[in-house]
Amino acid sequence: MNGDPILLTPGPLTTRLATRQAMLRDWGSRDPAFVALTAELRARLLAVAQGEATHACVPLQGSGTFVVEAAIATLVRPADKLLVLANGAYGERIAAIAGRLGRPAQVLRWPEDRPVEADRVAEALRADPALTHVALVHCETTTGLLNPLAEVAQAVAGAGRHLLLDAMSSFGAIGIDLRSVPVTAVMASANKCLEGVPGLGFALVAREALGRAAGVSPSLSLDLHEQWLGFEKDGQWRFTPPVQVVAALVEALRQLEAEGGPAARLARYRENFRTLLSGMRRLGFELYLDEAVQAPIIATFRMPRGRPLRFASFYDALAARGFLIYPGKLTRAETFRIGCIGALDRRDFERLLGAIEATLAASGPAA
Amino acid sequence: MNGDPILLTPGPLTTRLATRQAMLRDWGSRDPAFVALTAELRARLLAVAQGEATHACVPLQGSGTFVVEAAIATLVRPADKLLVLANGAYGERIAAIAGRLGRPAQVLRWPEDRPVEADRVAEALRADPALTHVALVHCETTTGLLNPLAEVAQAVAGAGRHLLLDAMSSFGAIGIDLRSVPVTAVMASANKCLEGVPGLGFALVAREALGRAAGVSPSLSLDLHEQWLGFEKDGQWRFTPPVQVVAALVEALRQLEAEGGPAARLARYRENFRTLLSGMRRLGFELYLDEAVQAPIIATFRMPRGRPLRFASFYDALAARGFLIYPGKLTRAETFRIGCIGALDRRDFERLLGAIEATLAASGPAA
Repeated sequence: MNGDPILLTPGPLTTRLATRQAMLRDWGSRDPAFVALTAELRARLLAVAQGEATHACVPLQGSGTFVVEAAIATLVRPADKLLVLANGAYGERIAAIAGRLGRPAQVLRWPEDRPVEADRVAEALRADPALTHVALVHCETTTGLLNPLAEVAQAVAGAGRHLLLDAMSSFGAIGIDLRSVPVTAVMASANKCLEGVPGLGFALVAREALGRAAGVSPSLSLDLHEQWLGFEKDGQWRFTPPVQVVAALVEALRQLEAEGGPAARLARYRENFRTLLSGMRRLGFELYLDEAVQAPIIATFRMPRGRPLRFASFYDALAARGFLIYPGKLTRAETFRIGCIGALDRRDFERLLGAIEATLAASGPAA
Repeated sequence: MNGDPILLTPGPLTTRLATRQAMLRDWGSRDPAFVALTAELRARLLAVAQGEATHACVPLQGSGTFVVEAAIATLVRPADKLLVLANGAYGERIAAIAGRLGRPAQVLRWPEDRPVEADRVAEALRADPALTHVALVHCETTTGLLNPLAEVAQAVAGAGRHLLLDAMSSFGAIGIDLRSVPVTAVMASANKCLEGVPGLGFALVAREALGRAAGVSPSLSLDLHEQWLGFEKDGQWRFTPPVQVVAALVEALRQLEAEGGPAARLARYRENFRTLLSGMRRLGFELYLDEAVQAPIIATFRMPRGRPLRFASFYDALAARGFLIYPGKLTRAETFRIGCIGALDRRDFERLLGAIEATLAASGPAA
């Protein structure tokens, strides 16, 4: 499907054709062939973060938010208390989930352009002994900011608390080594840096924590403990799995290995981002974040001053040229976002820059 | 993929190649093209049950169980009370969901081979004025039994209560006319009689009930009111949708219309079931249910007496011949199940019967 647009989004994103072709088959969800596919899925996901010795992989149907909610519902008990670290919409979403579930929570906030600070986390944990868990968003898709995982994880573990990591838009590219970084649960989804299709999330959960989580979740569907028991019992899913989405993710994980793993993928995304950033600067756009905290996953640009650009018409003009960009999600600044992830390389970004330049030229000179 | 096995299951099932090919494209989930696809999905699903004037279609990521839970979480308030009608595993699952959510519930039970009785429902509603909602499983996949929807719906509406209908394995084949049958919410999924792929459920909910459901669900992910508001606001999904699964379901819904709608599909499934039943009887198998309550969706057969058949070896032998059957789910009898749904016709069942006959011959004469 060569006429398809190029997706410059945080996902669903442009995937390889082989990934989509893996969906051309029907699978019996209780057949040994699919049980083997599920086992491969779980093993490969665990291996991406070197969690084999300590964690278990629990895939869950639905979007990434479903598995974040399931992790909180399953691991944070009513008598526990969650500290949510928020510097964007996804941190705020975790706070909203805890609020809905009736789990006691405190939110520690930073401005959207500032990373979470480990020393403030340590201080908050010292100040409130009731806090049992901490939730961190690794890469905040709101802006594209990378939070300092290693420092926060050390602060949380040092205080004897549990870290729940929303690694939705980092997993598969930005390394998370569970042998050295203390994280109780990592939540992510199929359709971001793993370059699968959407419909499936997963959590890598410390087995020790899973074992103590029976009956905690108020939701039957979003119960990672029961979901895990199902896999452990006979390798099958408790409830109907999205078989084609699973097959696509296994194919995408094989490709990740063939590419050279997360490090090689990150190098490709970095090249995408570098190409994009230098081209955008040449065209007069400014990066919203300080480069030092910008992950090469999704970049937020300010709408240029002095140019009569509205997002809707800019979007439409680029879409007509085959490129789908992404709206901004900031509460204050007028921005838009361009994803650097997916089955794309530097040449795609060079073509995108050509399309942006042509769009600017067609919209008239800068004021 | 002609070498793929034929799936004789309650889903995921054998789909048309065109349905799977609809997954070969990447979609931007916020792009106007996908917004239009979502609008078509919601309109077509509503039209299948003639709900346009009264109901709204709320698709939800995940398996069918997720949308059943979401409907209970969103529509049954903590001060309400749910009457669950149970004659199989799926009725019991609804009771388990209500229990987890902490919603008051009473379970009215029938044996697995007996349909729900409307007069007992009316009696229970008279006896307990606290009951506000009733949950019914239309076709119990445990056995394949069809419950009497029209009678139960009249009893529930006559008593001024709300009916929540789990139509998972009937929707798209067994007619549900929301203009004449009073149902507050119908829950179903993509991958059964609609012949889509798994990964998506949906509820058709009376708009009047949806409008009163703000903030009721204790789950952010499984909140049909907020999910509905999202679609109403800008046609977009709140959280990342499984774009390929959506595209496959829209293609499958177009095919349903081309086939002649649910009535034509039911006729094909009936012919599948008739072919299967007469052949199985000829081979010495007995239908578990009385034919009068058997839906032509999935049929439960007893393991033949006097034949040394174990399910695992019977399954393997048929799988080797390209047919995947389904284990039994009964608490008492030794049975197996054969689905009649999916992109299959009479000739597929004739071939299946040939494979069963050959398997029996290979396993030796009846004792």
